[in-house]
Amino acid sequence: MAQNNIPYKIYLEESEMPTTWYNVRADMKKKPAPLLNPGTGQPMTAEELGQVFCEELVAQELDNDTRLVPIPDEIRDFYKMYRPSPLVRAYCLEEKLGTPAKIYYKFEGNNTSGSHKLNSAIAQAYYAKNQGLKGVTTETGAGQWGTALSMACAYLGLDCKVFMVKVSYEQKPFRREVMRTYGASVTPSPSMETNVGKAINAQFPGTTGSLGCAISEAVEAAVSTPGYRYVLGSVLNQVLLHQSVIGVETKIALDKYGITPDIIIGCAGGGSNLGGLISPFMGEKLRGEKNYRIIAVEPASCPSLTRGVYAYDFCDTGKVCPLAKMYTLGSSFIPAPNHAGGLRYHGMSSILSELYDEGMMEAVAVPQTSVFEAAEYFARVEGILPAPESSHAIRVAIDEALKCKETGEEKTIVFGLTGTGYFDMVAYEKYHDGKMDDYIPTDEELAKYRAALPQIG
Amino acid sequence: MAQNNIPYKIYLEESEMPTTWYNVRADMKKKPAPLLNPGTGQPMTAEELGQVFCEELVAQELDNDTRLVPIPDEIRDFYKMYRPSPLVRAYCLEEKLGTPAKIYYKFEGNNTSGSHKLNSAIAQAYYAKNQGLKGVTTETGAGQWGTALSMACAYLGLDCKVFMVKVSYEQKPFRREVMRTYGASVTPSPSMETNVGKAINAQFPGTTGSLGCAISEAVEAAVSTPGYRYVLGSVLNQVLLHQSVIGVETKIALDKYGITPDIIIGCAGGGSNLGGLISPFMGEKLRGEKNYRIIAVEPASCPSLTRGVYAYDFCDTGKVCPLAKMYTLGSSFIPAPNHAGGLRYHGMSSILSELYDEGMMEAVAVPQTSVFEAAEYFARVEGILPAPESSHAIRVAIDEALKCKETGEEKTIVFGLTGTGYFDMVAYEKYHDGKMDDYIPTDEELAKYRAALPQIG
Repeated sequence: MAQNNIPYKIYLEESEMPTTWYNVRADMKKKPAPLLNPGTGQPMTAEELGQVFCEELVAQELDNDTRLVPIPDEIRDFYKMYRPSPLVRAYCLEEKLGTPAKIYYKFEGNNTSGSHKLNSAIAQAYYAKNQGLKGVTTETGAGQWGTALSMACAYLGLDCKVFMVKVSYEQKPFRREVMRTYGASVTPSPSMETNVGKAINAQFPGTTGSLGCAISEAVEAAVSTPGYRYVLGSVLNQVLLHQSVIGVETKIALDKYGITPDIIIGCAGGGSNLGGLISPFMGEKLRGEKNYRIIAVEPASCPSLTRGVYAYDFCDTGKVCPLAKMYTLGSSFIPAPNHAGGLRYHGMSSILSELYDEGMMEAVAVPQTSVFEAAEYFARVEGILPAPESSHAIRVAIDEALKCKETGEEKTIVFGLTGTGYFDMVAYEKYHDGKMDDYIPTDEELAKYRAALPQIG
Repeated sequence: MAQNNIPYKIYLEESEMPTTWYNVRADMKKKPAPLLNPGTGQPMTAEELGQVFCEELVAQELDNDTRLVPIPDEIRDFYKMYRPSPLVRAYCLEEKLGTPAKIYYKFEGNNTSGSHKLNSAIAQAYYAKNQGLKGVTTETGAGQWGTALSMACAYLGLDCKVFMVKVSYEQKPFRREVMRTYGASVTPSPSMETNVGKAINAQFPGTTGSLGCAISEAVEAAVSTPGYRYVLGSVLNQVLLHQSVIGVETKIALDKYGITPDIIIGCAGGGSNLGGLISPFMGEKLRGEKNYRIIAVEPASCPSLTRGVYAYDFCDTGKVCPLAKMYTLGSSFIPAPNHAGGLRYHGMSSILSELYDEGMMEAVAVPQTSVFEAAEYFARVEGILPAPESSHAIRVAIDEALKCKETGEEKTIVFGLTGTGYFDMVAYEKYHDGKMDDYIPTDEELAKYRAALPQIG
């Protein structure tokens, strides 16, 4: 492997930037299970999905066959504003760890949304605009997705209505304010603006909300407002398709320097980042051309892959969305209040769930204090203050590099650094002050949520 | 001018990155006035300065002759972690404004300190470490400089003690927390840890502090602690020297594409960013090779260039620092409480003051609501959420581009985008809620502060 004279940061030229997204479903012999209509139990048709999502996005959602999907020029132009993102050689981290491993990370935080979410936000907003829609609705938890969508909509002149989980709305006023800067309307969820919100407020007075509940509200708002559709920042096939720009760029940069990774690591909540990062690599693996180790890292407090079941489940609390087959903890699962970072969705992308079920990738769950320990270490050594989400991948990358130190193996490790932690300083403060706990749900707790799974599929 | 096929972002290759800083003093016929010992009224000697500053930095402070100063390899290695910074062609902004002007901005916000401050922080920390020191002290207001220095010290294993203006310490807990992540100790100023702090607390009970006061405390802490020196993030000649990496990179990138700017614009508080950005261009201008228009932009609420006087003044409130000749509002001047952004220092770099006095550059003062209007406009069009400081330059860049629209001139405008506004959302919120005022000090007020200037020089 030629790894001499690798710069600190590999930036592609504009002319080297990807012209197509990579649809890993084309390489899967067993395709991800289709979304089901909760009423009929039958696969959702394009027509049914078109009531909630934009037409072109429905087509992408259902397309299991086209491997290379052209990126429209308008989206590529927007990508050029903040992409290519650097593939960084972590020389300083390697040196401090004293590891023979070569560590690279693809850094997606150098844009105002602070994460990779913008890659899909601009695509979804573009197709909505193209269809002549007036606006889109969505939900946001930690706020990265809401920020990204606000930015994309501001750029295209599209209305953007964000339902923000109430506890985040109150505890993260700055996130909210960034979205307002981009002209979005931000409503704390559960609200009194939707039937779902009213019902949840009536059933659980004083509730501070959840992602599943905000999804239900955003979907209701979209289908009940002419000229609006709903957009989602993770989990869906279309989102992984857009996020494949991360992986395609990474592969072009590695190929340019003749580097073949041994291990590829990404954090996994709904799966948007991990799915995007690994797409072209997983394609090679599925075709039997390469044999990468691929590791999904999730929080021990929300362990859908490592402790969930692979089954059809509701995507949202209000049960207004289609059913998806995925590794899930149950749609009413909410991580313990002391869980600080994102990655709090109860389920996992159907694509990643299928690949995990087939043994094509591994999964590890890590407790949050060890994640923040890795985050602070990384910040001091590599300069970048990472998002708590991204720090899950850092944790396992460091662990793998330390294993190399023991064995003397010069493995090449690539991990996804999804974003920055500037809006997560409350969590860092808790960690510094020794007030952060690890909470790992018991088997009994998980069994309770699992018992509420729908009996389908 | 060849401006076809300019990419959205011009990134230099690692091999194209500057190997020398640019010392604009070498090109000045009339050198900036020397620092004076407030006791004797005589120029500060290297020995006197060495009690406060590191030796190598003292040498740089006093060197008016060496035009190209080599950047040590260790500093260049650190630069490679977050530099080169992109020179961005503002295609979207040009299109929205409908201007024939070509607009470029040098973006320094893609690092965790969120600004250009890191360029000098690593240099100063490096020389301190090289001298065998144990640590450094400094002050911080908005927090960008303190964050940058904390990052540099964490990298080099140097102690870092930051005196943070009390009002910022309380209102910006997240900034403080970032510094703690990098292992710095952060003390609200005025504190009870220094004689200066005690005296100020006794004289003004309940004061929320000022930059001038925090400087006094940091200097006292440095000179009274063995193995420590004081470092400063702006104003000084050495700081402008380090920040010249911004201008040198900008010039290399422009030259690569055959672009000659007509107008160069930068925000100016103490002058670190503007001085750095313009250094090589001002050199050409001083040597009569080129005739750029250079514009300093300052807040109307802290108008040191446009409404100050050019005279010797104290650099700090406690009057423990040397005297500097500069455009100043008087060392006891503090911007009105409703002033939201940074750029709140009472004086201006001696280099820039001299150049302004000689008519080599212009200055404009802009009211803050017009600055936030420009900030929000820019964020929506170009995607980046700018720092309030940087937005002063955006305001004037937009104004100049609109003049081009009227006259039809295709001028090339380059401005410095010093950083991001993620920790300034309280100010953005005020702006969104219509609660932001413009305050412009009256002539009578300014006269009062001016009357307190020392009678020297």
